[in-house]
This record gives sequence, structure tokens and C-alpha cells, in this order.
Amino acid sequence: SIVASSEDENFSYIPEIRSGMIRPDADYFYIVSNNTIYGTRYASFPDTGTVPLVADMSSNILSEPVDVSKFGIIFAGAQKNIGPAGLTVVIIRNDLVGNAPEKLPTMFNYQTHVDARSMFNTPPTYAVYIAGLVFKKLLNDGGLEEMRRYNVEKSSLLYDFLDESTLFTATVDKKDRSLMNVPFVTGSSELDAAFIKAAAEQGLVNLKGHRSVGGMRASIYNAMPIDGVKKLVEFMKTFETQQK
Amino acid sequence: SIVASSEDENFSYIPEIRSGMIRPDADYFYIVSNNTIYGTRYASFPDTGTVPLVADMSSNILSEPVDVSKFGIIFAGAQKNIGPAGLTVVIIRNDLVGNAPEKLPTMFNYQTHVDARSMFNTPPTYAVYIAGLVFKKLLNDGGLEEMRRYNVEKSSLLYDFLDESTLFTATVDKKDRSLMNVPFVTGSSELDAAFIKAAAEQGLVNLKGHRSVGGMRASIYNAMPIDGVKKLVEFMKTFETQQK
Repeated sequence: SIVASSEDENFSYIPEIRSGMIRPDADYFYIVSNNTIYGTRYASFPDTGTVPLVADMSSNILSEPVDVSKFGIIFAGAQKNIGPAGLTVVIIRNDLVGNAPEKLPTMFNYQTHVDARSMFNTPPTYAVYIAGLVFKKLLNDGGLEEMRRYNVEKSSLLYDFLDESTLFTATVDKKDRSLMNVPFVTGSSELDAAFIKAAAEQGLVNLKGHRSVGGMRASIYNAMPIDGVKKLVEFMKTFETQQK
Repeated sequence: SIVASSEDENFSYIPEIRSGMIRPDADYFYIVSNNTIYGTRYASFPDTGTVPLVADMSSNILSEPVDVSKFGIIFAGAQKNIGPAGLTVVIIRNDLVGNAPEKLPTMFNYQTHVDARSMFNTPPTYAVYIAGLVFKKLLNDGGLEEMRRYNVEKSSLLYDFLDESTLFTATVDKKDRSLMNVPFVTGSSELDAAFIKAAAEQGLVNLKGHRSVGGMRASIYNAMPIDGVKKLVEFMKTFETQQK
């Protein structure tokens, strides 16, 4: 049951969720807090009343503070901002644990993992260890308030340039722009391809956009330093000048 | 449905599986090829006829050659002989894929993983990478025939000493002894504790046996070099002399 969609505009904005749009008898209301493909992000979260809000935060967890108490379940694959792939972090409200159907496999029952303190299965020890180091580093660097400041600064460098560029355009509505994934286009697929090739020659790689959006996408997760974004913007300016 | 057990002797041997003991209409026949706690191992595998043989090989996969064609399913957690924890290798006979009940979660259906070539979920990339390096090393070192020779040599050092020792005793029947996990006892829990403490002071650690067996257990997986086993045997000889 789809409550709201921005499919009409190729998912370039976050649709407004108004009160009354969510059935009060729904088991849960599901969102993805940051869309890696389209570069959208929930800047604020919908009020779902008594319906538990469930969020996949894989691609922007730890990028800014989140009021965890507003959610029924938050889950996030580690591979973007937490640590190596192969680990998933789950935050679940106590009262949502223990309602699994009888025939659900043991491994899929959150009660199993709560009871076993996340040690029911042999855990991915290396990923857990590295995640611990990342958490300590984030705390040491000033926590998630500081990460938000840094990520806003980083992404603004790119968005501000895109908004004044005569060649490149950001594809997402200003209010819903991701701090992590920045899609942009030139409007010409030939020019997009030429840019991606020339950028790769300068060591600026993985800039090809997802096939459903086309164009380019700069993924600037927590681990991307601001100098990487500066280098990209400088190169984009040079490329733009060369097209004139 | 338990076909055979060695519970009567605290699981110190592998029970004989004779023809006729396995129901021909059974969906599968399940074994653990190597028991890490009790230190037993299937030196040869039972003939299950048309009933698929399913084996958990987590603790001795890659320690010696296995005729994979005799099995319906082999699975093994990586954490013993393959690589870092968090990865499981599954070898399944083609005709056993695709018979899952309709309501089984997608992730638990082997067809899902066959169709997606093991990329349905975000894979634990670091563990996969290290496993690849381990496989290459094993091939480079002479393959599993050579690993068997090396593991027999390693474990024999310890078993030969245990069989001639007047203080220490191996707990498993000779024909069923693991090449990976070697449990042994002194017969006195005080002496066991004194040995474990003294060994740890020499850097010989993790020698405490599982609580259901007591005593000691030396786990000598593929990655344990023969010099580690030699050092342990030397220390056991010294300890034994000191008790006289």
C-alpha cells in the first residue's frame, strides 16, 4: 500500500505526508531516509501517530543526528557510513519485539537476537571491530552534530556550484537534497559521458549516475573528505569553461 | 529423528551407520563432519543411498579432500578454515534447489542465491576477499591433499604423545579422532586447571576444554603451524615430568 510517491517527477522530491494519509490500523509505515539512486533525503520525518515508523537508514545513518525515539525500527547496512559490508545494525522499540508468527525462521525473529544479545549467529567479527573504531572516531570528532555540520558544508560546496552552473544541473528539489548522494546532469548524454571519462582520468571515479537517472552522481559519504569534494568542484568548473 | 548417537560414551566416538538404519523416505540425513567440542570426525562418510547427505563442515572444511559428489548439501561457516567470521559457504546439488515452501522468506530460499549468483544481499566483501586469498594460498601450497598430509602430521604429534603419556589421555577413539580439535584430560580437574594456567603463562592459550567435556582442547586448524603443536607437546612433556 503506497501512501505517497514522487514517481511523477522521477523521484526528484520527497512527497508530503499529511495527517490522515496513513491508515491508523496499519502495522507500520515504511520509508527510506536517504535514496542513494535519486539523491533525496527526508530532512524531517513524517508524524505517523501510533503507527510505528520503520526506516531503512543504510545510506545516511551517522551523517546527522536522528531522534531515535520517533521510530519503531531503524535498520542500516554497514556498508555506507558504519564500516565494512556484511553487518547490519538494527534499532527496535522494545514493544515491537516478540510478535513474530510461529513459523517464522528463528533467525528472522528479532526476539532471537535480543535474547542472544546479537550473538545468536557467529558475528562478522572484523566488521563489528571496524564499526567500533568508526563509532569511537565519530565521538572523538564531535559526534553527529559535527558530522551534520561537516556534511552540510561538503554537500553545499557541490550544490552551490550546481545551482550557479550553466552546464550542470542538480536533479533534486532543494528542500529534499541528500547530504550523501548528489546526482547531476548536463542535459546531454554525450556530454555526460565525456565528463565522466575526463573526470576518471583525473582520479575522480565512480561518478556515473544510476541508469534510471542517467547523468552523474557524486556519493560523498562520511568517509569522503571535504578536499575530495573541492577537487571535484574545481574539475567541474574547468570542464564547464572548456565547453564554452 | 536420531539415527545413531554416541551419547552413551559422552560423544567420544562416531557411531556406525549401517545400511537399513536410514529411512528411504527421509528428506535428508544430517551429520556434522567434525565436532569441535568432542573432537570427533567422520574419517569416512555414511552411504545414505538416495537420501541426500547434508553436512555441516564448518570446522574441518579445507582440512582434507572431500568427494563433494556424495553430498546433497555441504555448508561451512568461514570462521575456522576459510577466513574471517561472517561468511558461510554453501555447496548444494542442483536438483535440491527450488523446492522451498511458498511462505519461506526469500533470503532462506537457496534458489534466490543461485539466481543472484550469491549477490542477492550485500555480501561481506572483506570476508569474501580474504577467503579468496586463503583459497589461492591453499592451491599454491599443494591443495587439500597436502593439507591432509600436513594436518595428519600436526595432529599425530599430539595424539602420539597423548597415547604414550602417563599423565594426559586423549578422550576420543583412535579411528574417529579429529585433525582439528584434540581434547585431552589428566583425570584431575585440579591438575587440568594447573596445566591450563601454566600453559597460558608460556603463551599457549585457549586450551580450556568445553565445559561438557572438561579438561583441555587444542584447536589446531589449518592456520596453526606445526611449530605451535611442537611447542605445546614440549610443554606437556615438561609439565608431566614436573608432576613426578
